[in-house]
Amino acid sequence: MRISELSARSGVAIPTIKYYLREGLLPQGRQTAATRAEYDESHLRRLRLIRSLLEVGRLPVASIKKVVEAVEDESLPVHQMLGTAHYALSPAVEPESGEDWRLARDQVDRLIADLGWNVTPQAPTRDELAQTLVRMRQLGLSIDLAPYAEVAQKLVSEIDMDKIPFHGPRDAAVEALVLGTVLYGRAFDALRRMAQESESARRLSE
Amino acid sequence: MRISELSARSGVAIPTIKYYLREGLLPQGRQTAATRAEYDESHLRRLRLIRSLLEVGRLPVASIKKVVEAVEDESLPVHQMLGTAHYALSPAVEPESGEDWRLARDQVDRLIADLGWNVTPQAPTRDELAQTLVRMRQLGLSIDLAPYAEVAQKLVSEIDMDKIPFHGPRDAAVEALVLGTVLYGRAFDALRRMAQESESARRLSE
Repeated sequence: MRISELSARSGVAIPTIKYYLREGLLPQGRQTAATRAEYDESHLRRLRLIRSLLEVGRLPVASIKKVVEAVEDESLPVHQMLGTAHYALSPAVEPESGEDWRLARDQVDRLIADLGWNVTPQAPTRDELAQTLVRMRQLGLSIDLAPYAEVAQKLVSEIDMDKIPFHGPRDAAVEALVLGTVLYGRAFDALRRMAQESESARRLSE
Repeated sequence: MRISELSARSGVAIPTIKYYLREGLLPQGRQTAATRAEYDESHLRRLRLIRSLLEVGRLPVASIKKVVEAVEDESLPVHQMLGTAHYALSPAVEPESGEDWRLARDQVDRLIADLGWNVTPQAPTRDELAQTLVRMRQLGLSIDLAPYAEVAQKLVSEIDMDKIPFHGPRDAAVEALVLGTVLYGRAFDALRRMAQESESARRLSE
């Protein structure tokens, strides 16, 4: 298809497509004349992936580039490719100094080990969770995360993961992971607050 | 206690305490001399609540004022007081026009009715969830939320709600709700992404 059709079918404006081509986010089309190139379904799929990372994941272009490189590097195992996308979605948290941080980070590492979860030592989610724990401890909140971890495990293994096409095109797997993580995460958070409203009404009426 | 001790014990600077007093967020102390007032544990508790709404809930001062008014209005049932805090934590979503919005909002209302949840018709969480559904539909994602709702219900009734002191001081119940909703929500989201990493490794190694 021509760039005009690619634009119409993807909903991405032509100047934006040209920008992605220059930045290397979108592979060049097949040149059919000096000023004409042909695009195919793989370009359409890539544009969908870029839009999902940009609009739903709210990632900066530099992070999107890293994810796209992981998608294009066919020598990278699927799990590592998905990990690159996943880590790009985590907020960047700077490890802090001091005893509170060390304790929280130890607790996170112990929890993951106890659960037998396969999470890399350098996963940014470890620091992200440690930061939340430091905050909870400072505010005097109970910090037993095991029951939450159990529910998270159930949610992921019974529902989330069935939506990822692990053995289809690499773009499609990353796109499903990003959309699933972000959008179902938002939906779940709203549902949780509704359940809190409902359950709090029930308990107070008893 | 004097204002200096209130500041030391709460970790809130004296000029900030004076600002809260002027804004009516913090009740005046008991005047013991022309330039001296006495504060007690209730002031300390209120400062903790304000800090949690401000720093953890990231609410603007105008919203905090509404929550504080609900806490102070003893004629307001506890459930409505908690609802005011809860709704203040929801992102403000403008209902959209068009068929997509109407369908999504209908789906949300039907889901809540099917679950038998006690959620008020004007709860902002309804529009918040509808907006996420519109987005999912546009991106071609499956939008069966029932399994997520079931997990949310379990999380809330078995874990979240046991942390709220429904029958203690009104400030303390609101504070627990806000901290619990926001911080445990963040922790849960990080745990979910870790479980996704782990489960995706497991499935790909099979």
